[in-house]
Amino acid sequence: MSNDNALIGELEKLLGARGVLTQEDDLARYRTDWTGRCGGMPLAVVRPENTAQVADIVAYCHRHDVPLVPQGGHSGLVCGAMPDEERAELVLSLERMNQVRELDPLNFSLSVDAGCVLQTLKEVAEEADCYFPLALGAQGSCQIGGNISTNAGGINVLRYGMTRQLVLGLEVVMPDGRILSHMRALHKNNTGYDLKQLFIGAEGTLGIVTGAVLKLFPKPQVTRTALLACADIDAVLALYALARRCCCDLLTAFELIPRHCLELAMQAAPELRDPLDSAHPTYVLMEVAASGPADLDAMIEALFEQGSEAGLLADGVLASSEAQAQQLWLIREAMLEGQRQTGEHLRTDISLPISSLSLFHAQACHAIAEACPEATVIAYGHIGDGNLHFNILPPATLAEAERPPLLHDLELRLFEIVEAFDGSISAEHGIGRLKQAAFLDTLPGPEYDLMRGIKHLLDPRELLSPGRILPTSGE
Amino acid sequence: MSNDNALIGELEKLLGARGVLTQEDDLARYRTDWTGRCGGMPLAVVRPENTAQVADIVAYCHRHDVPLVPQGGHSGLVCGAMPDEERAELVLSLERMNQVRELDPLNFSLSVDAGCVLQTLKEVAEEADCYFPLALGAQGSCQIGGNISTNAGGINVLRYGMTRQLVLGLEVVMPDGRILSHMRALHKNNTGYDLKQLFIGAEGTLGIVTGAVLKLFPKPQVTRTALLACADIDAVLALYALARRCCCDLLTAFELIPRHCLELAMQAAPELRDPLDSAHPTYVLMEVAASGPADLDAMIEALFEQGSEAGLLADGVLASSEAQAQQLWLIREAMLEGQRQTGEHLRTDISLPISSLSLFHAQACHAIAEACPEATVIAYGHIGDGNLHFNILPPATLAEAERPPLLHDLELRLFEIVEAFDGSISAEHGIGRLKQAAFLDTLPGPEYDLMRGIKHLLDPRELLSPGRILPTSGE
Repeated sequence: MSNDNALIGELEKLLGARGVLTQEDDLARYRTDWTGRCGGMPLAVVRPENTAQVADIVAYCHRHDVPLVPQGGHSGLVCGAMPDEERAELVLSLERMNQVRELDPLNFSLSVDAGCVLQTLKEVAEEADCYFPLALGAQGSCQIGGNISTNAGGINVLRYGMTRQLVLGLEVVMPDGRILSHMRALHKNNTGYDLKQLFIGAEGTLGIVTGAVLKLFPKPQVTRTALLACADIDAVLALYALARRCCCDLLTAFELIPRHCLELAMQAAPELRDPLDSAHPTYVLMEVAASGPADLDAMIEALFEQGSEAGLLADGVLASSEAQAQQLWLIREAMLEGQRQTGEHLRTDISLPISSLSLFHAQACHAIAEACPEATVIAYGHIGDGNLHFNILPPATLAEAERPPLLHDLELRLFEIVEAFDGSISAEHGIGRLKQAAFLDTLPGPEYDLMRGIKHLLDPRELLSPGRILPTSGE
Repeated sequence: MSNDNALIGELEKLLGARGVLTQEDDLARYRTDWTGRCGGMPLAVVRPENTAQVADIVAYCHRHDVPLVPQGGHSGLVCGAMPDEERAELVLSLERMNQVRELDPLNFSLSVDAGCVLQTLKEVAEEADCYFPLALGAQGSCQIGGNISTNAGGINVLRYGMTRQLVLGLEVVMPDGRILSHMRALHKNNTGYDLKQLFIGAEGTLGIVTGAVLKLFPKPQVTRTALLACADIDAVLALYALARRCCCDLLTAFELIPRHCLELAMQAAPELRDPLDSAHPTYVLMEVAASGPADLDAMIEALFEQGSEAGLLADGVLASSEAQAQQLWLIREAMLEGQRQTGEHLRTDISLPISSLSLFHAQACHAIAEACPEATVIAYGHIGDGNLHFNILPPATLAEAERPPLLHDLELRLFEIVEAFDGSISAEHGIGRLKQAAFLDTLPGPEYDLMRGIKHLLDPRELLSPGRILPTSGE
């Protein structure tokens, strides 16, 4: 306790009293994430205003062996930024570092503090007729530093790539408190090792991202949304390859929605109507966007025509108004709500080679049905990226207490099949702490050793986000 | 000598006699690159047939402290793969590892050996109506392993990114001989540190790339080429921003060609005609491509119209036939030939924020004119990426012997201005050995230390491509 008081006194010297929170009431919101999960009690929460203050705190922690976890907008899905339950950690929130440093429309770049909220950045870009394409459900609260640290995906990956592809420059406070300032707004730079790649997707375990130069694009001016109906996943995949061609790679979304997901959505949102005249086994929600005079309707018509001729497309509708497009997107949102209403269930975020998706899906459904015939598989998602949310609803009659062990068992069975198909158990969400066991299960020795070596090189005392991605050495 | 004989005996045991070259005649072509530069005499050249053999050789070298340099197609521009003059190195050529492992058009991926020639891979992809977009002058001889190790750029970066963005998976033999097999053909994968990023662009100093999974795209079906004329670089840059929008990001090239480059081209290729009715200070060679039914002519017409209205575009021509398009591209090739004919000159490969290019260009031209009024600046290139080849021709009357010191002095002056504008002295070509001094000149301490740390972590004995990018520790 006296040590803690000394620590807090030192932190207040560095940041001023406003920069340090210690009261239990004040700490509550830094212990919980959007799912309602609650982490341990932090030593304190520090809220630096600038990079120099971050560096001061980290240097102090380095000298005094204080473990530290950086925090963005609390929208992570793997408990990476939540304070540890076993060992008290200092939480470093980037929320006060929320300044746009420089918008440069001619260079298609935007330089920002790491604590900027994603939605804010998207709006800043749009004011200059530019576009920052990263888009995800949490964009109203997540921070760009967190997006970078988790290499966030989202709905536009198909066209614009993961966050890694959207970062031109990075500013990082390293675990010893030194600042790596790699903030050049260059679209090409082959001078030595590309160090920023180390910190993108490292979930705060190798350094604290304090600033970034982001890559912008022209703002789309026209958008078209369509719903396609297919007989099976094979047809969906062949149609995807056709859509890439017909739509000249202007596709921004290609989302798989099986029939029972649509039904779940219609239950959750009674205003939703069955979008086509008859029912079909599977659907695709597709979006195409362009920044100039492209005839998107002609492209989609070509897809409809060629898809029908090839026997891939059973039916389809092209939204004829913004309202109709929103109605189609509502299917996806209501489907998520429909899942939530079923109570505790297994949510996954896996990826496979696109060409393996159909066979994988069949084998995985078979394995789940064998293990638990009454479970329901809900497999939907960014199929154009090979990314499925292969979720499993336990039998509705199953008692609450029996759900977790069943879901854990089904997850293990599912991940075994993912591994057999050379897939990934975390396409977008990262590892954090929740997926660590499954991750380590199949990580080859040379990769483990190299990851361990990198962590040791940068953070030999294991003070920065300890136990995330890799376990601490002692464990 | 007896040591060398023992080494060669061991290598022959590992690879068979065909896999090891030791005769001076046989070694000649592994000592020279395409510019005609000649490196030191290698200990031998080993030509493994598969990844296991590469691993065996590297493990042997690791145990016996034999320095080793991997070699691709000898088209590097910074002497990174050329054997050292001071210390004899073993050359490891990937040329016999040239098998396509798997083409998967549905997954838009291509899995290959590192020794495959780029042109071959492009053709393999095209047979499946797919497209591997990496495109550069040396594509008939360069190997994909070399492209990956140097994070090659080329003419399609604007649309498709550098090589880094085209790699889904990587197989690497690490300096201790262990194999890192990260060959999953996944478009998304957030499981732990993205280790492949370490080796892309590391110029063979951290490991030997032996295989890769590459990302494919739909093959373009229609292409349009245009030449635009502008009053100055400011107009070119504003036109670029407009072109991104009007052409819906289907731009594949946007190349700056100043008037005197065009004149140089016309001197070198007398069949070339002045492409427009009157002369203009600067031109842009632009290409747009699409894989489906996009009306590219309408997009380019919109650009012509809006560009003219905004006073940015003085004149322009849209190629009306494939032959006319080739004639326009010939300007760029002939311009390179025209430069070559002037004798020894300074060639650079710099990048700047696009928005700084005009001011940078003015300041750099001023500094060069001050230092050497009779020198001629030839600044052209991938202006849409902020990448200029800012080359300098010395006064034609200057004696051969006086050229190198003058060019070196002018390069230093130029690089100082690049640094002042937060640019890069190597946008595409890398560091190797030729650019090491200039690179180290401005590398900040924390970055140097981290690069050094990474090198030491992976290759503590400094046996792999020693002295490339970073000097060896002893130096």
